[in-house]
Amino acid sequence: MSGREFFTARTVSEALAGFRPARRTPVRAVPLAAALHRVPAADVLAPDPLPGFVRSTVDGFAVRAADTYGASEGLPSYLDLLGAVRMGEAPAVTVAPGGCVAVPTGGVLPAGADAVVMIEYTAETMPGTIEVTRPVAPGGGLVRADEDVAAGAALAPAGRPLRAPDLGLLAAAGVTEVPVHARPRVAIVSTGDEVVPPDTAELAPGQVRDATASALAGLVTDAGGEPEVAGIVTDDPGALETKLRTVLPAADLVVVSAGSSVGTRDETADAVAALGTLWCHGLAIKPGKPTLLADCGGIPVVGLPGNPLSALVVFRLVGVPLVWRLAGCEAPPPEPSTRAVLSRNLASAAGRLDVVQVRVRDGVAEPLFGPSALLSVLAHADGYLVVPEPATGLDAGCEVEVTLYR
Amino acid sequence: MSGREFFTARTVSEALAGFRPARRTPVRAVPLAAALHRVPAADVLAPDPLPGFVRSTVDGFAVRAADTYGASEGLPSYLDLLGAVRMGEAPAVTVAPGGCVAVPTGGVLPAGADAVVMIEYTAETMPGTIEVTRPVAPGGGLVRADEDVAAGAALAPAGRPLRAPDLGLLAAAGVTEVPVHARPRVAIVSTGDEVVPPDTAELAPGQVRDATASALAGLVTDAGGEPEVAGIVTDDPGALETKLRTVLPAADLVVVSAGSSVGTRDETADAVAALGTLWCHGLAIKPGKPTLLADCGGIPVVGLPGNPLSALVVFRLVGVPLVWRLAGCEAPPPEPSTRAVLSRNLASAAGRLDVVQVRVRDGVAEPLFGPSALLSVLAHADGYLVVPEPATGLDAGCEVEVTLYR
Repeated sequence: MSGREFFTARTVSEALAGFRPARRTPVRAVPLAAALHRVPAADVLAPDPLPGFVRSTVDGFAVRAADTYGASEGLPSYLDLLGAVRMGEAPAVTVAPGGCVAVPTGGVLPAGADAVVMIEYTAETMPGTIEVTRPVAPGGGLVRADEDVAAGAALAPAGRPLRAPDLGLLAAAGVTEVPVHARPRVAIVSTGDEVVPPDTAELAPGQVRDATASALAGLVTDAGGEPEVAGIVTDDPGALETKLRTVLPAADLVVVSAGSSVGTRDETADAVAALGTLWCHGLAIKPGKPTLLADCGGIPVVGLPGNPLSALVVFRLVGVPLVWRLAGCEAPPPEPSTRAVLSRNLASAAGRLDVVQVRVRDGVAEPLFGPSALLSVLAHADGYLVVPEPATGLDAGCEVEVTLYR
Repeated sequence: MSGREFFTARTVSEALAGFRPARRTPVRAVPLAAALHRVPAADVLAPDPLPGFVRSTVDGFAVRAADTYGASEGLPSYLDLLGAVRMGEAPAVTVAPGGCVAVPTGGVLPAGADAVVMIEYTAETMPGTIEVTRPVAPGGGLVRADEDVAAGAALAPAGRPLRAPDLGLLAAAGVTEVPVHARPRVAIVSTGDEVVPPDTAELAPGQVRDATASALAGLVTDAGGEPEVAGIVTDDPGALETKLRTVLPAADLVVVSAGSSVGTRDETADAVAALGTLWCHGLAIKPGKPTLLADCGGIPVVGLPGNPLSALVVFRLVGVPLVWRLAGCEAPPPEPSTRAVLSRNLASAAGRLDVVQVRVRDGVAEPLFGPSALLSVLAHADGYLVVPEPATGLDAGCEVEVTLYR
């Protein structure tokens, strides 16, 4: 364990609060169909009010409300049927006192009317005469022309990823292109003399296929980023620095999954330090201690531990919020979670964040441990729990919040 | 309100349990980089064990464990340093009794050794001699060749959408193509004389832009489906049936967002009934009562209410699980949720599921109501809560589970 590793060690809370690059991806207009989960750079405003006309919310008859006052089953009001409103068309008739006009749900309120009485409270007792058995107040059975959205109001707020219903509201307003932040380009660099590409059919003794890059690419995609798997660098001094110089100009974030031995960890730090400033080297998290955060000319660089499980744990906690922030979103969307009862005691060190993979069955969270941090643990886990920094452990039987994988 | 609408009305529970089409999308191999959230049709099996060799989990020295028995600070064991293992290479040396070989984290255990002692418990007191101050048990400091995954074991289970870490494990195993269910093709048909495309710049009085199709497309995408916005059909009798005949052959699921008036609701039922079997017409849910579920020659058809908010509420609850099931996933991934305290009383009818949009602030869930079900409510909501079918309401101050939008 190198002493240097802890030269500028930080807690995860410090990293989340303090390592906040100013960089944001550029803003471009994209078609609505491509805007799901993209982040508007500014509030998207309604050009016109919605629905844009006084609209019936029921099937019934447009009336002057005063003509229905006092109407009851025993003493109905009788109104002259003056015509009908057709869906999607401007009414051709006006409601005169003592008259009414048939109107469907969604139809335009005709001039002269100020309410719609529901068809359930009416009957056409004679052709051309509508009996009304309940009064309706002015404004009843309709929405105002700007009741859904006023002109100039925000259809979708800046900084929050667009959700499916937002796309509906934008479509309703005729906004078919939205200015959103570009997807952050995340260059993923793998290092290690032992690491070979996933499509290597036969491994030589000691070789391992690059697992971390594929998994990181998935996490980046989930966070709205654009992963660019930049290949594998050997542990030769200088090779990583050369690779970083190549990928930095076309990246919004660079992630380096380090070799797993002490020497290669230091090589990552040396290469990054040659191109920028180390913000921290060592994170008070288990697993994931040998994490590095740096700024290379305005591009954030995350150096991850060599162990794939540790790398993914750290990237989920520290890297994913960075990807969202680069796209203009300060608070990443919520992750699914569940409460469960812890099946056994968990020890931890005060000041260190412990991330524990768990299975959840019938409300019980069972920690998954192995002799070492193996990747298969993540595939078997339903989620993870966090032993927070101040705690020295968690007791069996206590209630825990488990973040669920999806 | 037509009597027919409730001819075969069902509860949401009945619909979820009973409307389960047998159809599944075909299985195709896709590259790993395109497999995120896709559903394997069968367990993906490991062709070989992982890591594939006995691997050191620490930086240290490969030893015969027996040579370290009894070692302590006061009485160290002294071992001959016979060489070093290089990352990614087969060891060139064998550990003879009384000897040791330097090995990095991730290195291959050399023949003859059965444990690795951590570098922290060693010192090179003289060149070529390693002092060991702690004993190590056989198997200490290493993982077996099949400890992460045994040959033939499942890397990822059938029926569960692949997550980012799964991609890592598959990459580690050299599985670079995965047989997964095709994305369900979901045809989205809008109806209504008043409905015009979202790119309509100027609306005539009474016209509304098609909001539902864009929002449904987003929900379909979130559920791993491939939305195909199939356009707007007028309320003319026969027009919907003609459109359905066109889209059914190329769809795994058809969604019709109905016109909002009584007449158009019946037209949907007539058109669907002409091509298949109505499973239910009317769902005990608020909002969303005028929902229709049908089977047209093995293709499920969902008829949604005309109101966009109602349509989205129903599709989220009933349609999204269908999309997942068509792709071979019986249990959709979990949604984010939070517990909150309800700010006011909510009335409901027993036997009916009520879906209430809420804002959540400081642990308090505040229902969002308007004079009618407006689309903007969804944009302002943080999520929704459900008043379950047996309940007649919820009391202010009770704890509720809010499903959060993301």
